[in-house]
Amino acid sequence: MNLKRIGNQTVVFSNPSVILSSYSVVGPMEGQGPLGKTFNKVWKDNINGNTSWEVAETKMLEEAMEGAVKQSQIKKDEIDYLLAGDLLNQIISANFAARTMGIPFIGLYGACSTMALSMSVGTMLIDGGFARKVLVGVSSHHDTAERQYRLPTEQGGQRAMSAQWTVTGAGSLVLGQSGEGPRITAATIGRIVDFGETDANNMGAAMAPAVADTVINHFQDMNRTPEDYDLIISGDLGNVGLNLTQEVLKKSGLHFRNFSDCGVLIYDKSQDAHAGASGCGCSAVVFAGHLMEKIKSGQYKRILLVGSGALHSPTSSLQGESIPGIGHAVVIEA
Amino acid sequence: MNLKRIGNQTVVFSNPSVILSSYSVVGPMEGQGPLGKTFNKVWKDNINGNTSWEVAETKMLEEAMEGAVKQSQIKKDEIDYLLAGDLLNQIISANFAARTMGIPFIGLYGACSTMALSMSVGTMLIDGGFARKVLVGVSSHHDTAERQYRLPTEQGGQRAMSAQWTVTGAGSLVLGQSGEGPRITAATIGRIVDFGETDANNMGAAMAPAVADTVINHFQDMNRTPEDYDLIISGDLGNVGLNLTQEVLKKSGLHFRNFSDCGVLIYDKSQDAHAGASGCGCSAVVFAGHLMEKIKSGQYKRILLVGSGALHSPTSSLQGESIPGIGHAVVIEA
Repeated sequence: MNLKRIGNQTVVFSNPSVILSSYSVVGPMEGQGPLGKTFNKVWKDNINGNTSWEVAETKMLEEAMEGAVKQSQIKKDEIDYLLAGDLLNQIISANFAARTMGIPFIGLYGACSTMALSMSVGTMLIDGGFARKVLVGVSSHHDTAERQYRLPTEQGGQRAMSAQWTVTGAGSLVLGQSGEGPRITAATIGRIVDFGETDANNMGAAMAPAVADTVINHFQDMNRTPEDYDLIISGDLGNVGLNLTQEVLKKSGLHFRNFSDCGVLIYDKSQDAHAGASGCGCSAVVFAGHLMEKIKSGQYKRILLVGSGALHSPTSSLQGESIPGIGHAVVIEA
Repeated sequence: MNLKRIGNQTVVFSNPSVILSSYSVVGPMEGQGPLGKTFNKVWKDNINGNTSWEVAETKMLEEAMEGAVKQSQIKKDEIDYLLAGDLLNQIISANFAARTMGIPFIGLYGACSTMALSMSVGTMLIDGGFARKVLVGVSSHHDTAERQYRLPTEQGGQRAMSAQWTVTGAGSLVLGQSGEGPRITAATIGRIVDFGETDANNMGAAMAPAVADTVINHFQDMNRTPEDYDLIISGDLGNVGLNLTQEVLKKSGLHFRNFSDCGVLIYDKSQDAHAGASGCGCSAVVFAGHLMEKIKSGQYKRILLVGSGALHSPTSSLQGESIPGIGHAVVIEA
C-alpha cells in the first residue's frame, strides 16, 4: 500500500479533492465588515425570524450547506458523507442540520479549527476511495456562543481587550474527486500544545503555540519555505494570537511576509471587536467567501489555511484548567 | 481510483485495519457487573483520588489509551493519529487526554456511537494510506454526565424506568495496517433519523429508528443475512430501545436470533440500572473487554457492532426539540 505521509505529521494527497462549490451565510455585523461583499448571504439580524438563537444557527448552517449543494449542481443524494461541527455543546447545530440534510454524518469537534479539520478529513475520505463527494459545513453564532461560554448577553458586561468576538456565520463546501475548482493537496493534522494559558478571554495566546507548532512541522515535513505560498492564513488567532505566533515563528527561523489571520480580516477596527474575531464560523466563511474568490480569480495560486482551536470548556476553565490549543493546516491550490 | 463503496452507505476496506490491542478501565459498578472480569482495570471508586469527576474521566481515558499502547508493544511515536471523543461539552475528556498523549488529534462527537465511529474513521485513515497506526479512545463517566445532562447528582431524584445509566468507563484500541489480531473489514456510516421522541429519559426510543435504518442499509448494501454474523450488537440502546429496534427490523423482514446490546449486557438486573446502560464508554469497554475476548478466543468469527447516538443537548431538549438519533456499524472479523 502506498503511504501518503511525509515527515512527521503531513499527508500529501495522491488524488487531491476538488472544491466544487462554496457558500457562506453571515450575520449583519460580518456583512458590514471589510469582507461583506464576498459572502453569499447576509442576514438582517442574528435571529432571522427563528424561535431562538440556537435554532437560527442551525438554519444558517442548513442555508450554507443547501447553498453549496445548489452551486455545485450535483444532487444531494450523490453526496456520500457530511462532515460538520460547531461550537455548541454536543455540536447541536451540526446534528440538527445533518438531520435536515439526510446524508451519512460524521460529527467533528475542533473548536475554531473545525473548517480546516473537516477539509482535511473530507479529502482523506475522497483520496482513500471512500467517497465521491463530501459536504463540509461549519458554523458559529455570536449569541449562542456568548451565553454558553461566557455570560448572559443581556448582562452587557465589558469585554477584555484581548477577547475575540464570535462570528455569526456558516460556511460550506462540496468536495469532489474530480471536476473544476481549487484542490486540497496536503494536510498537517495538529497535536495539542498547551503553554498553561488559563484566561478564556485570551484565546489567541492559548492557541498561538499550537499554530506555530503545526506551521513549523508543515514546512519541515514538506521541505518548503514561506515563499512557496502566496498566503499563510490562520483561522482564527485575532491580533494578540497572530503577533505571538509570528514571534514564535521568527525565533524558529521562519520569516513570513504573507501571514494573516481570518479573525483579523473579517471586522474593521471601527466595529469594536477588540482582538478580532473567533468562532468556527469565522475561518469557514472567510475561506468560503474571500479566500475562494481570490483563489478562483488567480490572485492566490497556493495558500496554507491553519485552523486554530481552543479546546477548553466553561467547566474546565472554572475548574482551573489551562486551555489546550490545536492547529490543523491544509494546502489549497488553484 | 478504486472506489470502496458498496450500495448506498457501506464501505468495504481493501486493507482492513488490524486491532493490535485493546484496553478498558471502568468504575466499581461496571466492575461488579456480569462483564467485570473482562475489563483490564477496575477503579475502587468513581473519582480515584482526583480533584473532580471531570479530571477523573480524563485520567481514566489516559489510562485506557496508555494501556492499549503498552499492550500493542509499539512506541507512542509510531502512532500517526489519535481519534477520540466523549460526552462532555466540547469533548474536554478527549482534548485533555490528547494533550497528554501528544499525538496528532482528530476530535469526534457521536454521543454513544463514538467508538464505532472512531473505529470506522480510523480504519479509513489506515486503508487510505494516511496512517500506519491509529489510536482510538472513548470515555464516559456517570457523574460528569449526570450533572451535565440531567440534574445535580446530590439531589438524588428518582429516575424513570426508561432511563439508562451512564457507564463510567474508557476503552481504547490500537489499529494498525498489519499484524496479528481481529480486523475491521467494513463500515456503514449512519444518517440521522428522528421520529420526534423528545424525552431525554428515553434515549433508547430516540435511537431505535436510527439503529434500525443503519442495520437495514448494512444488510442491503452487503447483500448479507443475519446468519452471516455470529452477533449483531448495538451500543447502546438499553432494554427499551433494543425491543423497539427488533420490532422495526422484524417489520422490514430481518429476523435475528443473535441481536444484543452493550447497554443490556454490562449491568445485572440487581444493579438497579433500570433500562440498562448508556454513555460512549459503554460500547467502548464492552468491545475492548468482553467482545475482543470472544473474538480472540474464536467464539465469534464475525460480528457487527452498531454504535448508537442520541445527538441532543440539554439546551435543545429545554427548547422543545426532539432527539436526533444516529447509528454507525462496523464489521469485525477474527
